Amino acid sequence: MSLKSHHPLEGVARVLKTIELRKGAVVTIDQTKLPSRHVKIQLRSCEEICRAIQKMKIRGAPLIGTAAGYALALTACRSRSTTAARMIGELGRSAEMVMRTRPTGVNPKWAVQRILKGARSFDDVEDLRSFVVSEADAIRDEDIHNNILIGKNGAPLLEDRDTVLTHCNAGALATAGYGTALGVVRAALEEGKRIKVIATETRPLLQGARLTAYELAKERIPVTLITDNMVGYVIQKKLVNKVIVGADRILRTGHVANKVGTYTISVVAKEHRIPVFVAAPLSTFDFEESVESVVIEHRGEGEVLFLAGKRIAPKGVGALNPAFDITPPENITAIITEKGILSPPYETAIRTLNEPTCLS
Amino acid sequence: MSLKSHHPLEGVARVLKTIELRKGAVVTIDQTKLPSRHVKIQLRSCEEICRAIQKMKIRGAPLIGTAAGYALALTACRSRSTTAARMIGELGRSAEMVMRTRPTGVNPKWAVQRILKGARSFDDVEDLRSFVVSEADAIRDEDIHNNILIGKNGAPLLEDRDTVLTHCNAGALATAGYGTALGVVRAALEEGKRIKVIATETRPLLQGARLTAYELAKERIPVTLITDNMVGYVIQKKLVNKVIVGADRILRTGHVANKVGTYTISVVAKEHRIPVFVAAPLSTFDFEESVESVVIEHRGEGEVLFLAGKRIAPKGVGALNPAFDITPPENITAIITEKGILSPPYETAIRTLNEPTCLS
Repeated sequence: MSLKSHHPLEGVARVLKTIELRKGAVVTIDQTKLPSRHVKIQLRSCEEICRAIQKMKIRGAPLIGTAAGYALALTACRSRSTTAARMIGELGRSAEMVMRTRPTGVNPKWAVQRILKGARSFDDVEDLRSFVVSEADAIRDEDIHNNILIGKNGAPLLEDRDTVLTHCNAGALATAGYGTALGVVRAALEEGKRIKVIATETRPLLQGARLTAYELAKERIPVTLITDNMVGYVIQKKLVNKVIVGADRILRTGHVANKVGTYTISVVAKEHRIPVFVAAPLSTFDFEESVESVVIEHRGEGEVLFLAGKRIAPKGVGALNPAFDITPPENITAIITEKGILSPPYETAIRTLNEPTCLS
Repeated sequence: MSLKSHHPLEGVARVLKTIELRKGAVVTIDQTKLPSRHVKIQLRSCEEICRAIQKMKIRGAPLIGTAAGYALALTACRSRSTTAARMIGELGRSAEMVMRTRPTGVNPKWAVQRILKGARSFDDVEDLRSFVVSEADAIRDEDIHNNILIGKNGAPLLEDRDTVLTHCNAGALATAGYGTALGVVRAALEEGKRIKVIATETRPLLQGARLTAYELAKERIPVTLITDNMVGYVIQKKLVNKVIVGADRILRTGHVANKVGTYTISVVAKEHRIPVFVAAPLSTFDFEESVESVVIEHRGEGEVLFLAGKRIAPKGVGALNPAFDITPPENITAIITEKGILSPPYETAIRTLNEPTCLS
C-alpha cells in the first residue's frame, strides 16, 4: 500500500456538491428523475431522508452515508429535547432508522456511529445540536475531499487512451461530489490522459444509462452505453482494457459488495486478464462483518417487471431483484482509497488501514 | 455422439405451429407485440417477410429459417414467370434478399439453399411452384419434428428438481414450434421431472421477459425473471444448476454465435463448473465459415437508448448494440441436436455430423 499526502480539502471548493443543509432542510437532487429532469428536493426530517433513500431519490453508498449524517442533523435541528442526554436518545433512534433503509451498504452506519460517538462528549444541548450539524457538514466535505484523493491516487492506474468499463454510477451523483470510480476517470483526464468510458446501463433502475451517461456527457467525457449483457462482448472484443467500479461495502477480507452485476463483470475481466479496480473511501469499509453475514438487499420485483411504468413481462410471472452481489478479493486487482492503493493480499492491506496510526 | 431413432413427424400434429402459409399469405405472430397483445400478421411477399425479420416481428434462428423458406414460396406463388429458369432467377434474388436481413444467423441461408438446390431439377414452372411451396412446408414441419427430437435427446441431461438458466428466447416462439432450449425443458417435464427456469430478461429487446416468460407461464412451467446483470448472482448463489440456450450459428469448430450475453453467461458458468448446453437443429450449423468471418449484426443504438418509447439516456450519448456474441467451444458442455448429443472435441463430432451418412 502506498500512502500519499495531499493538502486537506484541496479542490473541494470547486467541486459541485450534490447535497447540502440549508435553512433547516437537506437539499439534494431527486435522482429518480434524471436525466430528463434535474429536480431539487428539500427534505425536512430523518423520516423524509429515509424515504428518499428507500425510493432511491438519494442513492450511491457515499451519498447515502452523507445523507445519513444529515438525517441526524435534521433530528438535532428539530429536536425539542432540553437535555443533551434526551437528544442523544433521539439521535440513536434516528440512527437505527437510517441504518435500516438499505442493509447492504455500510456508509450510513459509519456516518451515524461517528456522530453518535462524538455526541457523547456534550452536556449542553445547544452545543450538541451545533456539533451534529457541523459534523454532518464535515462528513459531506470530507467525502468530496476523499474522492479527490481517491482520484489522485487512482489516476496513475489509468493510461493515455484507455477505455474503461464502469457499472452503475460511482460518480459525483453517488457521492457528496466528484465521485469514486468516475473521480479516478476525472483525475486521469485532468492529468491530460485521453480516457473513454463504456457504461453498462445497469438494470433494473438504469443508473448507468440515466446517471453515469448524464454526468459524463455533461462534462464532455466520451461515454458509450451498453446493455448489461454486452459486458462479455466488449471485453472479448478488447473494446475496454480496464474495469473501474465503486463499492457499497468492502469487508476486511477484501470482498466487495457492489451493485448487482459487478461480480459477473469481474469474472469475465479475470478470464481476459484485464484489471478490475474498486474505488471507495474508508467510510465504505466494514472491519467487523464477515462475508456470510452481509445482508443482500432484495428490492420489489416490480422494478424488474415494469419499465418506465409499462409492464414488460406477462402477468403472473415473478422476478428476483437482488440489488447487490459480492465480488471475491481474487477478482479484484486493486482497491483505491483516499489513503492509497490497496493490493492483494487485502486482508493484510486492510488490517494496516484500520490501525489507529493510519486512520489519523 | 449418441444417435437415436424416432418415428418421423411424431408429435408434430399436437404442437402449436407459429407460422404457416395460408391462402397466399404467411401467417405468423408479431413478436414485437407480445406479451401484451397476441397479434397475427399476414405477409404477402418476400419483401414483407424480410421487413418483418429486420423489425424482429419474426425472430429466433429456426423460425427465421422457416420464414426464409416461405419467403421463396411467396415469390413462387406470386411469380408471373412462364419458365422454370426464370422463376429460379426470381427465387435466387429473393434468396439473396432474405439472407441479407440478419447476417449472423445461418438458418435462412440453409433454407434457401435447400430450396434452390431442389429447384434446379424442375423444367415445368407449375411443378417448380408446387415444389417450392411444399419444400417450405417441409422445412417448417421438419423444424418442429427436429425440435421434438432435440427435446427427447436433451431431456436426459436435465434431472428432477433442476433449475435451468436460459437466455433470450429459444422456445416455441423462436422456432416453427416446440422450441430448442425450451423444447428440452418441455421434454424433461413431459418425462415427469420437476424443472424450474430462471430467464434473463435479455435487453435490449427483452425476448426473455416478453417471450420466454410468456410461453412458459402459459404452460404453467415455473419461470422467474432476472435482469441480465443478475446472472453472476444466481450462479454464485447456486439458484441455478444448469444453463441451456439456443444458437444462431454453430461453426464446425464448435463456436456458437447466439444472442449477446450468452458468452458472459458461459464464462460465469465455467467459473462455477455448471454445465452449459446449447440446443439447436442441424439447420443452425455452418460447416464452412470460420469464427473470424462470422459477421456480428449491429443494430440501431435506439434499441438501447429508448425503452418502451421513452428515452432512458441523455441526448448526445451513443450506444453499442451488437445483437450476438460468440461463445468458444471450451465453454460449452454439450450441443444437443436432433441427431444426438455432441460432446467435445466438437470439431470431430461436428465433422461426423456433416458426413453424408449422418445427414440422411
